[in-house]
Amino acid sequence: MNKIPASPLLGVLGGMGPLAAADFLTKLVAETPATRDQDHIPYVAWGVPQIPERPAAILHGGASPLPQMLRGIAALKQAGATVVAIACNTAHYWHDDLVREGGLPILHIADAVCDLLAERGITAGRVGLLGTDGAVKAGFFQQRFAARGLDCVLSSRADQDQLVLPAIAAVKAHDLPRAHGLAVDAVARLLDSGAQAVVLACTETPVAIDYADSPVNARCIDATRALARACVRWHQGTKQAAPLERLKLTQ
Amino acid sequence: MNKIPASPLLGVLGGMGPLAAADFLTKLVAETPATRDQDHIPYVAWGVPQIPERPAAILHGGASPLPQMLRGIAALKQAGATVVAIACNTAHYWHDDLVREGGLPILHIADAVCDLLAERGITAGRVGLLGTDGAVKAGFFQQRFAARGLDCVLSSRADQDQLVLPAIAAVKAHDLPRAHGLAVDAVARLLDSGAQAVVLACTETPVAIDYADSPVNARCIDATRALARACVRWHQGTKQAAPLERLKLTQ
Repeated sequence: MNKIPASPLLGVLGGMGPLAAADFLTKLVAETPATRDQDHIPYVAWGVPQIPERPAAILHGGASPLPQMLRGIAALKQAGATVVAIACNTAHYWHDDLVREGGLPILHIADAVCDLLAERGITAGRVGLLGTDGAVKAGFFQQRFAARGLDCVLSSRADQDQLVLPAIAAVKAHDLPRAHGLAVDAVARLLDSGAQAVVLACTETPVAIDYADSPVNARCIDATRALARACVRWHQGTKQAAPLERLKLTQ
Repeated sequence: MNKIPASPLLGVLGGMGPLAAADFLTKLVAETPATRDQDHIPYVAWGVPQIPERPAAILHGGASPLPQMLRGIAALKQAGATVVAIACNTAHYWHDDLVREGGLPILHIADAVCDLLAERGITAGRVGLLGTDGAVKAGFFQQRFAARGLDCVLSSRADQDQLVLPAIAAVKAHDLPRAHGLAVDAVARLLDSGAQAVVLACTETPVAIDYADSPVNARCIDATRALARACVRWHQGTKQAAPLERLKLTQ
């Protein structure tokens, strides 16, 4: 017997970074082609910030956030979510565990970034990665780039300490002019190392870059926006699949 | 036997206006006194925009959004929400139905606005209300103001048609300079009518006002921000209540 398919509902796992989920939801709306409110993607979002820090778990063997993330996935599933997007780059370190133990398909932010790079014609050569130490150490961007034939360029330790981390701290301290200058310099250094594009793999750096125009802005890929675009493609796919599903039900 | 109290979890009923829930969540973070990520308010948000238009239901007897709103409340409740905030002014027209049929306490945006007015020392006299025709016709702001001894001043039909509605349309069309000018004029007209403050009772007008500085900005009350502040008070109340609850459990 055919089962009536569940209505597509995007589950958003947030709570990792106070504004990360709201930022993702804003970009999701911006990336959705819509002529009326009802065209937008239905979602349920879990934003519970009482969860161990992700970088500390990856870098220093701190408490794992996995149990709380799984609790979030369970709540999203119970609310009817049929697919999940994680509004945090670093948290994708646990992507495979979450898929295996959470029981829902989960889009991967690094796949979404690779798809956006391919859309821009970048399918070989070097790509820069700008992120926190945790996101870099997690390694999944590098692995996914390698699987697509892309070489990953990272900031030097000195650039990480003098440009990337201070840029992120300046965004958190609302000093956007300073953050912009530091982030632009960090991107420029990666472009000088032969990167064709630079992936902004934390939620703060796009805010820093977008604060003002600069020669490097067009060379940046916002990973959160790439994930939003992947969600739009998922949603378009469910709409195309729906008539077939209905057809099956009548057979 | 005492039951272990559920962890406080804010349910956010969104999906009414593509950006309304993300806007509310951003203001919730901004209004929360926090020194680290874990201090922020845990929430689950329902953002399903496949729901009949609220103004059409109120103004022209169109399809009621109540069943879909109740479905949202049910999903939030199942996910563990212990209180609800509705990220849409006009939707508060159905507040009492939602409380009665949804089975969860729901903060009221107009009470939140009255509390913020009182904080600013406004407990008598005239208060302006700037909103869509639906929010104005719904009448709950006027009723709540009256219950607190405040007189409500509304825009004239001409001002509504020539200033308020065009300002909202200009925000939706991303023409913020035009939106700002129109909204400032609409607020100024209400202040000229003797209003001590003007409540911005739709999600677009705060965007228009905040676009630039003006002599009227400080006289405006953003209803969404007032609701966010009410959520912060609710959350602080649950933290103060917690030790007592624990005490009861040990008796």
